[in-house]
Amino acid sequence: MSRQKFSTTILGSNSALPANGRRPTAQLLNVNHHYYLIDCGEGTQMQLRRFNLKMQRIKVVFISHLHGDHYYGLPGFLNSLHLLGREAPLKIYSPPGLKEIFILLTKAANGRLGYPIEFIDLDPKSFGKEKREIYSDAELHVEAFLLKHRIPCFGYLFKEQTKELSYLPKEGEKRGVKVADISNLKRGQDIALENGDILDHKLVTSPSLDPRSYAFCTDTLPLDSTSEHVKNSTFLYHEATFLEADRVRSKETYHSTAKQAATVAKNAKVDTLVLGHYSARYKSLEDHLKESKEIFENSVLAVEGDELEFT
Amino acid sequence: MSRQKFSTTILGSNSALPANGRRPTAQLLNVNHHYYLIDCGEGTQMQLRRFNLKMQRIKVVFISHLHGDHYYGLPGFLNSLHLLGREAPLKIYSPPGLKEIFILLTKAANGRLGYPIEFIDLDPKSFGKEKREIYSDAELHVEAFLLKHRIPCFGYLFKEQTKELSYLPKEGEKRGVKVADISNLKRGQDIALENGDILDHKLVTSPSLDPRSYAFCTDTLPLDSTSEHVKNSTFLYHEATFLEADRVRSKETYHSTAKQAATVAKNAKVDTLVLGHYSARYKSLEDHLKESKEIFENSVLAVEGDELEFT
Repeated sequence: MSRQKFSTTILGSNSALPANGRRPTAQLLNVNHHYYLIDCGEGTQMQLRRFNLKMQRIKVVFISHLHGDHYYGLPGFLNSLHLLGREAPLKIYSPPGLKEIFILLTKAANGRLGYPIEFIDLDPKSFGKEKREIYSDAELHVEAFLLKHRIPCFGYLFKEQTKELSYLPKEGEKRGVKVADISNLKRGQDIALENGDILDHKLVTSPSLDPRSYAFCTDTLPLDSTSEHVKNSTFLYHEATFLEADRVRSKETYHSTAKQAATVAKNAKVDTLVLGHYSARYKSLEDHLKESKEIFENSVLAVEGDELEFT
Repeated sequence: MSRQKFSTTILGSNSALPANGRRPTAQLLNVNHHYYLIDCGEGTQMQLRRFNLKMQRIKVVFISHLHGDHYYGLPGFLNSLHLLGREAPLKIYSPPGLKEIFILLTKAANGRLGYPIEFIDLDPKSFGKEKREIYSDAELHVEAFLLKHRIPCFGYLFKEQTKELSYLPKEGEKRGVKVADISNLKRGQDIALENGDILDHKLVTSPSLDPRSYAFCTDTLPLDSTSEHVKNSTFLYHEATFLEADRVRSKETYHSTAKQAATVAKNAKVDTLVLGHYSARYKSLEDHLKESKEIFENSVLAVEGDELEFT
């Protein structure tokens, strides 16, 4: 049984300084062909065009924190949506502060947008150690939790909605199931047949697969709490700005090394770890991959243009 | 006699919506290997890297106006200068408002830069119809004047400093010029020789060439006053967002057509017109060039990556 689309396309993989052909952070999450933008570093709108990802299909934006390399592409992106004729509302989740910035930029331009934006502030003080659902729709639900960086910064956990069971028509016909009862069976309810017998839904449905999940964690020191929050995720994106050799610098700047990212992944028992947010000081990233694989074999590098399917 | 470097490199040539491989406005002015940045659309820092233009050499930034496609690359550019270790001060000229934006972004990031920025506000109310010198150094002086757009917008005229005369050593030796007198001769002063004769400086120097100038005019309706302000410039960059066929839209949005840009150039008697700030609606720009050349033969298209030498 082929599963619905659930993937992320890497639009930017570097940390603050664009270098070595790598850009600041952004990813396009695709859940059953519904689009969500995760962070929006400078140049994100050009990257969306470059990879033929229609920006008008983006419904919600999730910003990790208000360092420029994670959102300086947002004002241009929002303006381009307007110029392209958008009318559909857009939601933007972030730590507090974005709305005030947006208002000031709009005032300077004496402008207005042709669609409504809802800025949803995630208040770091109200979170503490908890993980909380902040958004859901028919495709996914999203939980947020605090990371540890120089300023308030959120990790996001994107989970597929649990889907209905698959109805097996041949098995149903054999047992005389009426059309009106199919939706109840798909929701896992047993039904009464015309002859009064109770039909176990399991006889005429196949189970839905476990919902997959994608955790996005940048920028942050390595945390035990992150492993707890993202336990058993299908994919984990964890920043690996530095190598172990630069661990002092990593700690000073509230970042992680590849080894530390791998340790978080290992403790969380995720399927696959995606490394990213590389420092400009590294031209090649082979050492990041090697360092991570020593701790957690199923590690991959975030590479711009790559679409990672969460299988 | 070969002249000193005086050129601009096109970093972005499109109007607000990046499209057709074209980016928002930015140019790198090179005067005798001193760098000046003119406008700073999103992605400017990536373009500087792409074309191997060292961003640390930029001394001054001139922003035409506060529509995003002319400065949304500035915050990331300023941050990258910091990350690259800049200590030298930077001056930024623009209509009022940039400093307030910069302070808010810096507050959100809980950040600071390792070098001082001086924001110099050009007050549109104080300008009226006049053209005024706003900046000068050993290489160039810069004049600003108002254009006509939806919000306050400035044109800039960059002029080489008039250089000293060239001293001709052979002619000088023949006439017994002492080393101490050379600098006076180069400034055009006649000097007294040891025998009491007065030496005409023209006999031992060659004349300096006329200073060249580059006028940068975007975004704007076509104006007679622009032709006056940029009279006899070597190069004129004038926005040509639209073609004549879209003149109604052009006027509504306070922009110019290629024909109108050409008319400004013709009336100003400049040597060369550079067209730019193209609307995303035009895939090819051949019609812009054709329309302009019908009025002003010496027209060229701004093409990203091209370095235009003002000869």
